[in-house]
Amino acid sequence: MGRGALPRHRVERFRRDPFARRMGFELLHAEPGYAKVAVDLTEDLFNFAGTPHGGLLFSLADYAFAVASNSHGRIALATHGSIQFMAAAEAGERLYAEAKESHLTRRAGFYDMTVTTESGRLVARCLGVVHRTSRALDEEGSQ
Amino acid sequence: MGRGALPRHRVERFRRDPFARRMGFELLHAEPGYAKVAVDLTEDLFNFAGTPHGGLLFSLADYAFAVASNSHGRIALATHGSIQFMAAAEAGERLYAEAKESHLTRRAGFYDMTVTTESGRLVARCLGVVHRTSRALDEEGSQ
Amino acid sequence: MGRGALPRHRVERFRRDPFARRMGFELLHAEPGYAKVAVDLTEDLFNFAGTPHGGLLFSLADYAFAVASNSHGRIALATHGSIQFMAAAEAGERLYAEAKESHLTRRAGFYDMTVTTESGRLVARCLGVVHRTSRALDEEGSQ
Amino acid sequence: MGRGALPRHRVERFRRDPFARRMGFELLHAEPGYAKVAVDLTEDLFNFAGTPHGGLLFSLADYAFAVASNSHGRIALATHGSIQFMAAAEAGERLYAEAKESHLTRRAGFYDMTVTTESGRLVARCLGVVHRTSRALDEEGSQ
Repeated sequence: MGRGALPRHRVERFRRDPFARRMGFELLHAEPGYAKVAVDLTEDLFNFAGTPHGGLLFSLADYAFAVASNSHGRIALATHGSIQFMAAAEAGERLYAEAKESHLTRRAGFYDMTVTTESGRLVARCLGVVHRTSRALDEEGSQ
Repeated sequence: MGRGALPRHRVERFRRDPFARRMGFELLHAEPGYAKVAVDLTEDLFNFAGTPHGGLLFSLADYAFAVASNSHGRIALATHGSIQFMAAAEAGERLYAEAKESHLTRRAGFYDMTVTTESGRLVARCLGVVHRTSRALDEEGSQ
Repeated sequence: MGRGALPRHRVERFRRDPFARRMGFELLHAEPGYAKVAVDLTEDLFNFAGTPHGGLLFSLADYAFAVASNSHGRIALATHGSIQFMAAAEAGERLYAEAKESHLTRRAGFYDMTVTTESGRLVARCLGVVHRTSRALDEEGSQ
Repeated sequence: MGRGALPRHRVERFRRDPFARRMGFELLHAEPGYAKVAVDLTEDLFNFAGTPHGGLLFSLADYAFAVASNSHGRIALATHGSIQFMAAAEAGERLYAEAKESHLTRRAGFYDMTVTTESGRLVARCLGVVHRTSRALDEEGSQ
């Protein structure tokens, strides 16, 4: 961290992500190549077997991934994501996802994500790859 | 398909999946080792870049995956999922996810998932693996 | 299949792949977006637990993936690969890997791979993504 | 590290891995849940495009993964592996792969792998999952 702040309007745009709002995801911190997000585990985020839905865990990690990979101001499109599910979590717990850039080229970006509980227990781990387009993020449709 | 029907109470349990209900996912069809689900793309399922959220696409595929892998009546826990994002889709479109079992052992199950539009355009493709526990699905918590 | 043949010099270049030669991989068939390769399972391709090495299975699939994704004549660089291991195989068996293109854009290509035995048993399944560069395959270093 | 040494006969068994020997892989260090291996990049480990073969990179990581996941003395079978390819490397360079256990349950183990050059450049990153069987590694076929 400490790699500098993002322009405020870009962070605001990430915060207005419609899906993240619907899911109750919070964007806690964003820097170039890094993001941290959180969600409070309510029971409607669970599956029929009584554990947090795999889709919810992936979605939380994916939101951090999207913010980190678009943080440089160019539209980045995910081409692949991979997730390992290690452990369950309980209703009432707060989950955090962090995305860290491990490598960046002109055309591609590579990211690691972890999902952990408040106490630091590892719930899921992900890898993600983006194709970096040449389109500026800030110019399109951000009103 | 045509591999036989699931017990009605098991299908009902899959339909009561809290996360799937919150997301508006519909379970269209389930058989042993197979499931098909759908969602209508509303704008609150999109990301800040104006395409369906990667988390939404994974979640839809994951719901089909969970139904197919638990269809045999034993609790199956996902250990891994992988997704490729091929194409975007528009608000108003209906998306389908299908999960097919490609291999089943006593302890593991392997699944392919596709996410497609009404017209058959391929939007995403996934692989998933489960660990099959020895616990019966129907005995626990299905009232 | 039947989507047309590749230029002979391009197929020859794929056949001269140094790693594939070292491994004893054979390129059986290549077309635009498709490749089929094979290997005879000798005991030096096994691991310490007595099954074909996971690296060998991935490598075979990866060779088919590389041929299929470079078949269009532009250098394609893999950014990601994912593999599921379903079943073992015996020394003396012949393994086949097939790669099929599921989606192609100007900048990315998406591929499915399967590894099967002579009798059609599924041994492994993979997904792969490439970044398509603008460099022609045939111009560089193919003497 | 420093979590204790493995029994010598177990390390010897890992060293006799037939595929690793064929590939020229060296096992540098092994502890419970951890392994580090290396290979010298010779030109017959390259692909037709002149970069180290993706299969070679996966195989090196997979060897470290297999040692780390079998280090506890119970047969562990990989069900899934995922790899990101970040950067190329040159003939004459030495590559290292490290595998670290991120989570272990009675039935499953989760691992992170990196492939780096001597100078620490990140070449590839992997995730892997194993199913842990109840069979002892040391009892079977280790003469």
